[in-house]
Amino acid sequence: MARKADGAASGSAAPIDLIGEAGRQWDKHWGHDAVPSMVATTSIMRAQQILMARLNEILDRFDLTFPRYEALMLLYLSSRGSLPLGKIGERLQVHRTSVTNLVDGLERSAYVERVPHDSDRRMMLAVITPAGRSAAGEATRELNAAQFATAPLTNADLETMTAVLLKLRADADGFPPG
Amino acid sequence: MARKADGAASGSAAPIDLIGEAGRQWDKHWGHDAVPSMVATTSIMRAQQILMARLNEILDRFDLTFPRYEALMLLYLSSRGSLPLGKIGERLQVHRTSVTNLVDGLERSAYVERVPHDSDRRMMLAVITPAGRSAAGEATRELNAAQFATAPLTNADLETMTAVLLKLRADADGFPPG
Repeated sequence: MARKADGAASGSAAPIDLIGEAGRQWDKHWGHDAVPSMVATTSIMRAQQILMARLNEILDRFDLTFPRYEALMLLYLSSRGSLPLGKIGERLQVHRTSVTNLVDGLERSAYVERVPHDSDRRMMLAVITPAGRSAAGEATRELNAAQFATAPLTNADLETMTAVLLKLRADADGFPPG
Repeated sequence: MARKADGAASGSAAPIDLIGEAGRQWDKHWGHDAVPSMVATTSIMRAQQILMARLNEILDRFDLTFPRYEALMLLYLSSRGSLPLGKIGERLQVHRTSVTNLVDGLERSAYVERVPHDSDRRMMLAVITPAGRSAAGEATRELNAAQFATAPLTNADLETMTAVLLKLRADADGFPPG
């Protein structure tokens, strides 16, 4: 994830903390009040970019992206190896069109099949295939071994962050915060 | 950001901590080693979704999305009110095609104009317009007042999270961690 060096335009090729620099600009123009929230929000956006790129790189050889991996794992861990499409969207908290795209991608890799529900033929189920089950297991072993791309964070760092984000998620998603 | 109730399929409409539930499944299937990293990574992905949706909602009346707002603020805070497109990509750490889309969007809102560079006519600059400067200022006041959509987190929460994410960013982006 090295940034492109652009010596001519930047005057220097040494990477700097761009979000820290934004914080200093904010302080100067608008005072300190919103600095902690601006810096934290922007840091989450950047962390998501970093993690998504690293995870997608690990998953590439399984013909998966992280969002498709998440959908596949819902099926892998479900008691019947199948879920209605609507339920997948509910669990991943994404729109119907995103579920369609995810399941399309998994179907192209032959990891999932669409099958009508037994008792309600209008409801479509996504069913994990043996190939999908095998890819899910292998990909999970790789992600576990790579600590989900979180280097160089320690378990203490990760648990600290998870606890803070739990407050945000509980508020937004409407469940009791622990 | 309430999830769709789907009582028929889920058996219950009460929202639960889906990431906490995934952590328990992980522990059961693969042991505890990777649980802190899986839960933290997935929490960051969800937090990014939550924040992006909230920020885009605040910015909607300015005809902005958060990524476009970030590009506009680079220009607003630049000494000349203009930057080469390549420089914008470098600062936002996104690909050339994403910069093109962001600047296209800002140009449609008449917040930015594309102008050839004085000394190198092949290099295109994005220049902020007076309307862009006014939107940037007003949008920033709203985002500052809304603490960048980070409710219910406190400044202490935000600073804790920023410090952890600084370690991850410094490692990935190659700058000294503080």
